[in-house]
Amino acid sequence: MLEVALLGTGGMMPLPNRWLTSLLARYNGSSILIDCGEGTQVALRETGWSPKPIDVMCFTHFHADHISGLPGMLLTMGNAERTEPVTLIGPKGLVRVVTALRNIAPELPFEIKMIEIEGNAQTFSFDGYRIEAFRVNHNVTCYGYNIVVDRNAKFDPQRAKAQNIPLELWNPLQKGNTVTLDGVTYTPDMVLGEARKGLKVTYCTDSRPTESIVENATNADLFICEGMYGEPDKIEKAKEHKHMTFYEAANMAKKAGARELWLTHYSPSTNRPEEFKKQVRAIFENTVISRDGQTVDLMFED
Amino acid sequence: MLEVALLGTGGMMPLPNRWLTSLLARYNGSSILIDCGEGTQVALRETGWSPKPIDVMCFTHFHADHISGLPGMLLTMGNAERTEPVTLIGPKGLVRVVTALRNIAPELPFEIKMIEIEGNAQTFSFDGYRIEAFRVNHNVTCYGYNIVVDRNAKFDPQRAKAQNIPLELWNPLQKGNTVTLDGVTYTPDMVLGEARKGLKVTYCTDSRPTESIVENATNADLFICEGMYGEPDKIEKAKEHKHMTFYEAANMAKKAGARELWLTHYSPSTNRPEEFKKQVRAIFENTVISRDGQTVDLMFED
Repeated sequence: MLEVALLGTGGMMPLPNRWLTSLLARYNGSSILIDCGEGTQVALRETGWSPKPIDVMCFTHFHADHISGLPGMLLTMGNAERTEPVTLIGPKGLVRVVTALRNIAPELPFEIKMIEIEGNAQTFSFDGYRIEAFRVNHNVTCYGYNIVVDRNAKFDPQRAKAQNIPLELWNPLQKGNTVTLDGVTYTPDMVLGEARKGLKVTYCTDSRPTESIVENATNADLFICEGMYGEPDKIEKAKEHKHMTFYEAANMAKKAGARELWLTHYSPSTNRPEEFKKQVRAIFENTVISRDGQTVDLMFED
Repeated sequence: MLEVALLGTGGMMPLPNRWLTSLLARYNGSSILIDCGEGTQVALRETGWSPKPIDVMCFTHFHADHISGLPGMLLTMGNAERTEPVTLIGPKGLVRVVTALRNIAPELPFEIKMIEIEGNAQTFSFDGYRIEAFRVNHNVTCYGYNIVVDRNAKFDPQRAKAQNIPLELWNPLQKGNTVTLDGVTYTPDMVLGEARKGLKVTYCTDSRPTESIVENATNADLFICEGMYGEPDKIEKAKEHKHMTFYEAANMAKKAGARELWLTHYSPSTNRPEEFKKQVRAIFENTVISRDGQTVDLMFED
């Protein structure tokens, strides 16, 4: 199960009752945070989830509304007695920005590892999941992220039997080990059935729509995408500031064949984003006009 | 009139329903902010007061809970179309810390002036008020602040008459000008009656109790002081972390002859600070267990 909480839905500045956009995902005891603006630690506390197991923090870019909460979050994780290292991933400049912000959080009881993303796309593997960063199109270098949990193919005893694989090897092969017995090498794929669908969450903010976002969100179980403006006539403003409208996000979700779209990163000028629900659902039915603290538990099929 | 709003009452980290401790004072169209932690811009917005007229920001010290909201506040002031310079005052290191934090707020439509406080005490004069910084006793260099509005003595026509001051000079002298007429120099004090009480707000956090705090809070109209712990048995913890209990703050307010004490900067472990109201008022009757957004309008007497 991959648990997802959209901690906030605002863009630009935190507002009373609207935290800045940030995602927390939990998988198998490990938490992943994407973006950490001013107040994200409070938003997290409101969900009741702990900051302590955050093993990885990804940053889309370094505008203040996406990273200004980092020093406070790190200190709060320290106060929660975390001692394991934390990995930070972000665009080039990450080391400079984080080092600068740590002027006010110099002493932490855990190590900070930093990875600056190279090129247009890069994949990072962790225990049980991977994070795929992909370049988007904002007015500064900015990345979207996929959180992907692969699912092992099911053990297929018929195939194992058909290949005369010794019974005592079924279990180690099923667990992913390659085994050599009496000079013959057996590999895990020999006992596995068809590949099974895993889980994918695609997260994208701040950007104009791009083909790469659509590709990355293809068949996503959940596509979380910025919608800075709900008013259709704000398209020019969206272009100017390198953001997108609700409708542009919905069109991408449709092209990508995503299961569900969560809109977020609303402009402070958009007081009631749910006003535009009908229009945006006319483009992509499974659109959620997200609210702060929106959660879902994504499960493997069957 | 000096308007005062205590934007938050928390220490260490912002919590749901408890912003970090920060003070906004307004006088004659100018706003003064003391400390700006994570979320202070939201707390300010909740009061309905604008961030735009903040001419001066004072920082007690550079622990994150007192300054982490600075980049966001500056950006929001810029979005509010402020163009006038903003003066920042704080301990030595201010330039380094602010420059570092501005990595995520590099472009602002106004100039930032920075003043690092020299020595144990320093006074800064602004249009109509002054700010007095005084060293307190924390585990890093930390200052308390007085915001002082002086009140001119009243014009005394009896005195002017008794000294045969020509009638045409009464008005310029009353306005504070020194005038020479027919070789005789007349000074404003010649036409003024007894000095009149002005207004003083004393703000102190984070610190152990000190004599200097008592001196600075002497006869303050409002003494805003940290009370990290309400539980009397946390005195040792207070000493260790260089904070104070509610009772230590109340004792200082009593010694200083302050009119009113507002406690603030509660530990996250103190869920219900008002539980200790009775005990602390036994020491100093005019104690307020402050809440976020507590406001008062301080008026000149009569």
